[in-house]
Amino acid sequence: MKALVYEGPGSTSWKDVPDPHIIQPTDAIVRIDTTTICGTDLHILKGDVPAVQPGRILGHEGVGTVTEIGGSVSGLRVGDRVIISCIKSCGHCTNCRKGLFSHCLGDEGQVGTGWIFGHLIDGTQAEFVRVPYADNSLHKLPAGVSDDQAVMLSDILPTAFEIGVRDGRVAPGDVIAVVGAGPIGLAVMATAGLYGAATIIAIDPNESRLARAAGFGATHTVNPGNPEWISEVLALTDGAGVDVAVEAVGLPETFEMALRLVRPGGNVANIGVHGKPVELPLQDLWIRNITISMGLVNTNTTPMLLRLVAQQKLSAGKFATHHFALDQIMDAYDTFSRAAETEALKVVLSRTSHD
Amino acid sequence: MKALVYEGPGSTSWKDVPDPHIIQPTDAIVRIDTTTICGTDLHILKGDVPAVQPGRILGHEGVGTVTEIGGSVSGLRVGDRVIISCIKSCGHCTNCRKGLFSHCLGDEGQVGTGWIFGHLIDGTQAEFVRVPYADNSLHKLPAGVSDDQAVMLSDILPTAFEIGVRDGRVAPGDVIAVVGAGPIGLAVMATAGLYGAATIIAIDPNESRLARAAGFGATHTVNPGNPEWISEVLALTDGAGVDVAVEAVGLPETFEMALRLVRPGGNVANIGVHGKPVELPLQDLWIRNITISMGLVNTNTTPMLLRLVAQQKLSAGKFATHHFALDQIMDAYDTFSRAAETEALKVVLSRTSHD
Amino acid sequence: MKALVYEGPGSTSWKDVPDPHIIQPTDAIVRIDTTTICGTDLHILKGDVPAVQPGRILGHEGVGTVTEIGGSVSGLRVGDRVIISCIKSCGHCTNCRKGLFSHCLGDEGQVGTGWIFGHLIDGTQAEFVRVPYADNSLHKLPAGVSDDQAVMLSDILPTAFEIGVRDGRVAPGDVIAVVGAGPIGLAVMATAGLYGAATIIAIDPNESRLARAAGFGATHTVNPGNPEWISEVLALTDGAGVDVAVEAVGLPETFEMALRLVRPGGNVANIGVHGKPVELPLQDLWIRNITISMGLVNTNTTPMLLRLVAQQKLSAGKFATHHFALDQIMDAYDTFSRAAETEALKVVLSRTSHD
Amino acid sequence: MKALVYEGPGSTSWKDVPDPHIIQPTDAIVRIDTTTICGTDLHILKGDVPAVQPGRILGHEGVGTVTEIGGSVSGLRVGDRVIISCIKSCGHCTNCRKGLFSHCLGDEGQVGTGWIFGHLIDGTQAEFVRVPYADNSLHKLPAGVSDDQAVMLSDILPTAFEIGVRDGRVAPGDVIAVVGAGPIGLAVMATAGLYGAATIIAIDPNESRLARAAGFGATHTVNPGNPEWISEVLALTDGAGVDVAVEAVGLPETFEMALRLVRPGGNVANIGVHGKPVELPLQDLWIRNITISMGLVNTNTTPMLLRLVAQQKLSAGKFATHHFALDQIMDAYDTFSRAAETEALKVVLSRTSHD
Repeated sequence: MKALVYEGPGSTSWKDVPDPHIIQPTDAIVRIDTTTICGTDLHILKGDVPAVQPGRILGHEGVGTVTEIGGSVSGLRVGDRVIISCIKSCGHCTNCRKGLFSHCLGDEGQVGTGWIFGHLIDGTQAEFVRVPYADNSLHKLPAGVSDDQAVMLSDILPTAFEIGVRDGRVAPGDVIAVVGAGPIGLAVMATAGLYGAATIIAIDPNESRLARAAGFGATHTVNPGNPEWISEVLALTDGAGVDVAVEAVGLPETFEMALRLVRPGGNVANIGVHGKPVELPLQDLWIRNITISMGLVNTNTTPMLLRLVAQQKLSAGKFATHHFALDQIMDAYDTFSRAAETEALKVVLSRTSHD
Repeated sequence: MKALVYEGPGSTSWKDVPDPHIIQPTDAIVRIDTTTICGTDLHILKGDVPAVQPGRILGHEGVGTVTEIGGSVSGLRVGDRVIISCIKSCGHCTNCRKGLFSHCLGDEGQVGTGWIFGHLIDGTQAEFVRVPYADNSLHKLPAGVSDDQAVMLSDILPTAFEIGVRDGRVAPGDVIAVVGAGPIGLAVMATAGLYGAATIIAIDPNESRLARAAGFGATHTVNPGNPEWISEVLALTDGAGVDVAVEAVGLPETFEMALRLVRPGGNVANIGVHGKPVELPLQDLWIRNITISMGLVNTNTTPMLLRLVAQQKLSAGKFATHHFALDQIMDAYDTFSRAAETEALKVVLSRTSHD
Repeated sequence: MKALVYEGPGSTSWKDVPDPHIIQPTDAIVRIDTTTICGTDLHILKGDVPAVQPGRILGHEGVGTVTEIGGSVSGLRVGDRVIISCIKSCGHCTNCRKGLFSHCLGDEGQVGTGWIFGHLIDGTQAEFVRVPYADNSLHKLPAGVSDDQAVMLSDILPTAFEIGVRDGRVAPGDVIAVVGAGPIGLAVMATAGLYGAATIIAIDPNESRLARAAGFGATHTVNPGNPEWISEVLALTDGAGVDVAVEAVGLPETFEMALRLVRPGGNVANIGVHGKPVELPLQDLWIRNITISMGLVNTNTTPMLLRLVAQQKLSAGKFATHHFALDQIMDAYDTFSRAAETEALKVVLSRTSHD
Repeated sequence: MKALVYEGPGSTSWKDVPDPHIIQPTDAIVRIDTTTICGTDLHILKGDVPAVQPGRILGHEGVGTVTEIGGSVSGLRVGDRVIISCIKSCGHCTNCRKGLFSHCLGDEGQVGTGWIFGHLIDGTQAEFVRVPYADNSLHKLPAGVSDDQAVMLSDILPTAFEIGVRDGRVAPGDVIAVVGAGPIGLAVMATAGLYGAATIIAIDPNESRLARAAGFGATHTVNPGNPEWISEVLALTDGAGVDVAVEAVGLPETFEMALRLVRPGGNVANIGVHGKPVELPLQDLWIRNITISMGLVNTNTTPMLLRLVAQQKLSAGKFATHHFALDQIMDAYDTFSRAAETEALKVVLSRTSHD
C-alpha cells in the first residue's frame, strides 16, 4: 500500500510500504476512506516529538472501513464504517477502568499509552491501518453521517469538548474566553454550549479567523493586537474576569493570556500542545482559587458527540475547508501548513475510488 | 488597648493603640483570648506583602469573647466564645452566594476581598479586634473545645483541608504526597483521611519534622535530601506517581517536586504562599491530564471541622507546641521564626487574665 | 393597602389591610409592580396546605420597587427594582452556608424555613410586601428586563432549572422526558439545554399544550393517551429509556410515568407538589441504579438565569399569556384555574399606575 | 464436577454436573477455592427470582484459581489466584464505557446484563465456574490476601461502599444511619469512613448484631424496638435528621425508617433487595430536597478496596464467621439461613484439598 512515511525532521514521502496485518487477536485492519492532518503532525515533522522515529507512518485521525478483524474482536464486522479514535484503549487496564483512556496502559508486550498512532505505531495517513484494541478504539458510524463530519470525531471535537469545555468545568451561564481560533479553538466554541456557556469570546490576532468564529458559536471576538484587549474582555464579564479561559494554541504567551483573563474561582483549561515551559506567576495566583487543567482526550464523549452530529445538533462538516485525494497528501500538508494564508481549518483527504 | 503594630519591614512593636469600635451594624468587637502567628505574618514582616501598611495591627487567627455587637448582628450575643475566621464574608455578594467566601466582595465602602485581618484592616494580635460581617465571620464555640484547639480552626485546619485535601480531590484509597511537614502540611496529613487517603507520604528535609509526621497521620516519610527520594515515593505507588501531591511550603523547588510526583490523571494542590514565579514544564505536562489547584481558604468547612474537634475525632490541640502570654508576643515571634531550631509548630498566645 | 386575603378553604377576598412595615433591620418593604399566581396558590385555596391560616395574604412571586429598607440592609436602596424570590434566605444559618437556601432556618424568633411568603407570612398578591432578609431574598433588576420577564424568575424558571434540570443531573447529549407541559414543565424544556440536553420529549395529554411545547424547547411530543406512548418515548432513546425523566405535575400517575421511562443509571427529578403518597415499585427498581430527587428551589441560580434573560438568551416573557390589573386578581384566579380551557400559562398582574 | 443445583423453589442438591468449558474467547475457567452464600441466594431458593430456572448452579461470589483461558484473554494466566466479581462486564458496551458495569450489555448472543452468575448462567457454588469477559470480571489477588478476605470483595464490600456510601454521597463530617446490621449494613459501617462519615449509627432490632456493630465502625447503636428510637437518632444530629440514611435490609418498613430519618437536603441510599413496593410519602417529601438512590454494584471500586485490604486498612476477614468445606454446602445454607440464631455473617466454603 501507499503511506506517508516520516523520514526524519523536515522530510516525509508518500510511498509504497508493506500492508499492515493483524498482530493481536484484538486488532482490526481498516481501509482508510478519509483522513486529515493535525497541528501535531506539523510538530512531528519539525522533529519536535523525538519519540517518532524515521520510518513511521504519520496520522492519528481517520474514517474507514473494516477489512479484517482479529479473533477476539466482538463488536465489529468486516465492512463496518468506523471512526478511528486518535487514541487506543484496551478497556481493562487500571487507567481504562477509570475512564482515563488517554493513558491506557494496554497489555504486556503491547505498545505504550493512549496516543500511539503516527507516534509509536504506524498511523492513518495511509491506505490501510492496523488498529489495536479495535472494540474500544473504533466507533461504528450510523448511516447519514458523512466522512467529512465523522473525521472531526477522531480528535478535534472530543479533544475540544473534553479538555477545553468539560475539564474547564464550564457551567450554565458562564463567560468563557477561547485563546486561539484555529480548528481546536473553534471546536471549543462549537461545543461550549453543551455545558451552558452563555458568552463565548474568541481571541485571535487573525481577523479572518475572528470573522469565522461567529459561525462556530462565538458571541464576541477580541483581537489581542488591540492594546485594550484585556479591558475589552473584562467588559464582557462583571469586571472580575472570565469563568473559564481555554488555551487552544500551545505557546507561552497564549497560556499567559489565559491566566490573565480568569476570574478568582475560575478555571484555565489548556488544550495546546506545548513545546516550551511557561512561567507561572504563583506569587499572584496562589490566592486566586483558580484551577489549571490540561491533558490528552479520553474519547469517552465520542459516542455522545457522534449522536449529536447524527442528529444535526452539532455541525461538524464545516471544519472541512479543503479537500484532497489521499495521494495528494503532500499538497494537503502544504495547504495546511500555510493555514494563515490558505485559511485552512481541516484539510480532508479521501480515498481515490478505484473500485 | 495593646496590640502588635507593623512599623515597616523588619519592625513591629507591642504598644498602646486606640480600642476598636463598631463601624458597621454588621460588626462585632471581640476580646482576644487566644491568638497565634502564621507563616504569612513572617512574610509580612519581611516586607513581602506591600499591601500591609505601617501602622497595621497584625494577625488573622484568634479565639475570643464577643464584647459588643452592631445593630444588625443577629446570630451572636455579647459573651459568646467565638473562633475568628481568617477571612471575612458578607454572605450576600456574588462570590459569597457561590461559597467563594475567600473572595467576598463585601458591600460598597467596605474593605477588600476575603482576607483582610492583619492585612487591610487591623488584626487579631491585639487585646481586641473589630470583626466585620460578624454573623458570617465568627463561629460560636461549643463547651468542651479548648482555646488551643479552637485557634487551629481560624486558619490552618480549614486551609489544609479545603485547599489541600478537598481541592486536591483526594479520593478513597488515594496515595498522597505532602511536600512540607510544617503546620499546614501536618494539617493536610491530619485531615486527608476525611476523603479516604490511604497512603500519606510526608516529604521534608527536616528529620525531626518527619519524625513528628506519623503522629499527624503520615503513613510514610521521605527525605528529599536522599538522591533516591523520587524512587522512594514511586515505590509507594503503582509506579506511575501519586494521586495527589500537595505543596505546603511556597517555594519554586517544592512546587516542582509536587509536579514531578503526580501520576497521569492526578492533581497538584498548592497551599503554599509563593513570592516568586515558578517554571511550569508544559512541554511535558500538557499530555498528562493533571489538574493544578491553588487558593485561599473559603472556611465553608470550618463548622464541620469544629464538630469533629468537639467530638474528639480530629486532634487539633497538638499543633500548639509553645505557649506565651499575649504580652510576650515578641518572644513568641522569635520562637516561631526559628522553628527549625525550636521545633515550634504553632505558638499560642493567651490573654493574661486580670479579672 | 389592598391585598388578596385567604379566608379559609375556597374563599379569598381582595380587600383593605394594614400596610406592612419594617420589623427586623434586615427587612425591606417592596411595592408590588407585578405579581402572578402559582399552581400552589390553587392548592392552598382548596385547603390542601393547612399551614396557611385564614387572614394570610397569598402569593410568593413578584417584581417590585423598594420603598423602605431596614437599618442593616446594605445591598439595596429605596427605588431599586427587584425580583422577589419565592423563598427567603438569611445567608448565615447552617443550611444557607451550604447553599440550601430552601431550608433557611433564619434566626431565632424569625419565621420558619425557606418558603414563607403567602404561606407563613404575608405574600406578594398585595400592593406592598415586607421582605425578610432583603439582601439575600431580593435580586436587583438590570435595565432592559421587563416585569413580565422578571416575574418568571421569582419561582418557575429557577425551580424548573434547579429541581428539574440540575438536580436531575441532565448531561450533554441526554434524552430527557418532561411529564407535564404546564408552566413548570415548559420551563424545564426551556432550560434543559443549559446542561446540554439534546432530545427533549414533552409528555402531556393536552394536545394544545403539546403544540406549544416546541416553542419552549421540546424536540418531540408524546401524548400518553396513545396506548403506544411508552414505545414512542423509547424509540427516541437507544431502547433502554431516557437519561432523565422530570415529573412536573404532582400526581401519583405522572410520577409513575416518570419511573417507567427512566433508563438504568438514569435519574427521576420530581418538581410536582404532591398531595398523596405514591407507590414505589422497589422490587423492580432496586437493581436499576436510578436516583430520584425532589425539592424546593434554592434560588442559587436566579442571578445566572437573570443574566441570561437580560442577554436575550433565555426567553422568559412568553410564559405570560394573560394580563390583568392587580385589582382584577379575582378574574385572574378564575382564568388561571381554568387553564385547560383558557390556555393560560402564567397570568400576570400589574399595578394600576396612579402616579 | 460437583455443584449446588437449584431444582425449583425450596429445593437444591449438591451433585455431579458436567465440567464447564470455554465458550467465548473472552472466557476463563476458574477452579473455586472459596465461595460463600448471599442473602439473594436465599431469595432465589424461595422462588422469589423467577429468572432463575431449575438446573441452574447457584452462587455469585468466589475466589479461585484460573485453570484455562480463552484465546483473547490477555490480562490473566493459568494459575492466577483471582476474585470473581459478582457481575460480569465486557468493558466496551455503552454502559461499560460509562462505568455502569452493573448494566453491562455484553455482545450479541451473550447473556444478559451485569448480574448473571447463579442467575442467568451457572454460578460459583461449584468446583469450577466459567467466567465470561474474564479480563474485566476477575481481579488478580496479590500475595498476602487470604481467601476469607478476598471473597468479601466479590460482592459485599464493593456493594456496601458503592451503593451505600458513595451513591449516598457521604461527605466528611456526616452523620449517617445504617438501617440493618447484617453483613451488608456492617460493610457500610466499615467503609463509610472512606468518605469521612463521623457519626455512624447502627439501627437493628437484634441486640447481638448491635453489639457487634461497634467492631465494624458504628459509633452509636439504636434499637428500633425502643419507642423513642427516632428521638435517639435525632439527638445524635443537630435535630434535623441524618445526612445519609442507608437501607440495608430490603423491606418496606426499613425503607420507611430511612425516609423518616433523613434531613432536608440529605440522601437515602437503598442497598436492600426488595420484593415488594413501598409507599413513598411524596406529600411530605417533595419539599425536603432529598435524593433517593438504589442499584446494583458496578465493582469499579473493587481494585481500590482490594488494595486497602492488602494494606491492612480495611478489615475484611472478620465478616467470615463460619467455615465449611465446599461439599458441606447444605449445612452451610442451613447455618446461614438461621443467622438470627447462629449469628452468622458470612459462611465461607472452601475447597477440600485433595492434591
